[in-house]
Amino acid sequence: MEPAIVEYFAELQCSRQWKGFLRVLAEEFVEQLSEADLRALMLRLGARFARATPLPACRTLDELQIAMGRVWVGQDWGWVTLEEGPENLRISHFCAPLFTAFGPASTAWAPAFLEGAYQEWFRQSHAGDLQVRQATAPDATGSFELRLEAA
Amino acid sequence: MEPAIVEYFAELQCSRQWKGFLRVLAEEFVEQLSEADLRALMLRLGARFARATPLPACRTLDELQIAMGRVWVGQDWGWVTLEEGPENLRISHFCAPLFTAFGPASTAWAPAFLEGAYQEWFRQSHAGDLQVRQATAPDATGSFELRLEAA
Amino acid sequence: MEPAIVEYFAELQCSRQWKGFLRVLAEEFVEQLSEADLRALMLRLGARFARATPLPACRTLDELQIAMGRVWVGQDWGWVTLEEGPENLRISHFCAPLFTAFGPASTAWAPAFLEGAYQEWFRQSHAGDLQVRQATAPDATGSFELRLEAA
Amino acid sequence: MEPAIVEYFAELQCSRQWKGFLRVLAEEFVEQLSEADLRALMLRLGARFARATPLPACRTLDELQIAMGRVWVGQDWGWVTLEEGPENLRISHFCAPLFTAFGPASTAWAPAFLEGAYQEWFRQSHAGDLQVRQATAPDATGSFELRLEAA
Repeated sequence: MEPAIVEYFAELQCSRQWKGFLRVLAEEFVEQLSEADLRALMLRLGARFARATPLPACRTLDELQIAMGRVWVGQDWGWVTLEEGPENLRISHFCAPLFTAFGPASTAWAPAFLEGAYQEWFRQSHAGDLQVRQATAPDATGSFELRLEAA
Repeated sequence: MEPAIVEYFAELQCSRQWKGFLRVLAEEFVEQLSEADLRALMLRLGARFARATPLPACRTLDELQIAMGRVWVGQDWGWVTLEEGPENLRISHFCAPLFTAFGPASTAWAPAFLEGAYQEWFRQSHAGDLQVRQATAPDATGSFELRLEAA
Repeated sequence: MEPAIVEYFAELQCSRQWKGFLRVLAEEFVEQLSEADLRALMLRLGARFARATPLPACRTLDELQIAMGRVWVGQDWGWVTLEEGPENLRISHFCAPLFTAFGPASTAWAPAFLEGAYQEWFRQSHAGDLQVRQATAPDATGSFELRLEAA
Repeated sequence: MEPAIVEYFAELQCSRQWKGFLRVLAEEFVEQLSEADLRALMLRLGARFARATPLPACRTLDELQIAMGRVWVGQDWGWVTLEEGPENLRISHFCAPLFTAFGPASTAWAPAFLEGAYQEWFRQSHAGDLQVRQATAPDATGSFELRLEAA
């Protein structure tokens, strides 16, 4: 796919209404906070988001994936797949609009928003003794992986 | 107009993609910062926004109103009128989506974003010795007035 | 509410992506088709839409209202209330974006789209021997009433 | 790029408000009209669109490309490049949302909308004795080429 088209799609990922605001918010955050503090802030925001958007009770991993996906797709935040592995659960989030919104450098801290959201949703699902951790860096489409594993 | 319709239009004012994020951001801000600090933060964000979105050179108040309006309308942030009075300039901003985004209680601090943006744009227009001040509280449509006057 | 604000909200009701296309589509339709043919076309389109978007099985009028509302709200087409009366069922559709899209003159024919959609959904709900009929003209917010009654 | 991501971006290209309506409109069109009539209808709609959205006077091809691009980008219809060749002018339209809206089979007739729009805009620019013709089929991103050449 041509780079100009990838870039156009990346731009489309973020609503034009908040692009300007969110970009300067990111600049201000980066100027005022250390990266560790910024990640901690995003983690708290993600947890707040998940508390404000609780999932219905789910009995299976499939149901959980569908319930989470409904939230993300409903607000154009991409989608998620959950895959059980031998040692952990792989959480793949695709096409998050966060990095279009906050700018390319935000891949260092903005993923923590999703870390916080998934952690809180798994806590609601009684997997709260396990820890969500980001496992890969976001690619150009805003997609990356997290793991749910022993704390 | 029926209250349910006014409420529907208020909801429409803010893109569904960022409603959830911006609402928890406002909660976090209110918990962590005093109202004065929150207004100061919004003022800085507004000034950053106007620096990142500089206006073309304008020779008249009408041209300035059109240039500012183009920015706001282009991102679905309402529109603005500028009216010269005997002692100051009246800036009327209509239908800002800020209060749908941040919640009703944000009328106490979110207007400072627009204060900061207008201040910076007037500074760019060489009216920087004058001061932009919020003059009325936002109504249910997100509309309120500011003044440009002697500092 | 100030007329300029009502007008702004009316504009917001229709996505900017299709405003231009839908406006010229309406012009072409009006030039090529009689009003009766245009209403018949809209009726067929509405029925197609409801067949392509079938409702889950509903046991009560409340469930039906919620299921229909979920479709409309999910695509920013306003919402609906259903109220049982002595002789018919009152269907109140609020804030349809059709008239912003197709222009003010389309209030003469565009409501037939919703007539067709409700007729088909009631047919799916085994009320197909009853007839949906538009009862009032759309107001400035795109709201109007229909009735489900004996054919 | 993973197929699921390409598909997600394709879906994002079309506003959720009109996806349902435009999809059934396409079905109705295909059932009622021959492909030739459907192309002719799209051509007329495109010409109407360009008349309703006239370009400012342009002195160079670059200015024309910028003016056209402003229309397309302003409504999230992708963008265009114009390149002069020895025998014709190459018009490359990128990321049109038409095929997401009308469905994959519409690549056979929906491009005529853009053919009609470009023809009318070149007529406005006094190149009306030349003919715009579609040169390639739209790809999965909604991108394709047209030529402006001797009639």
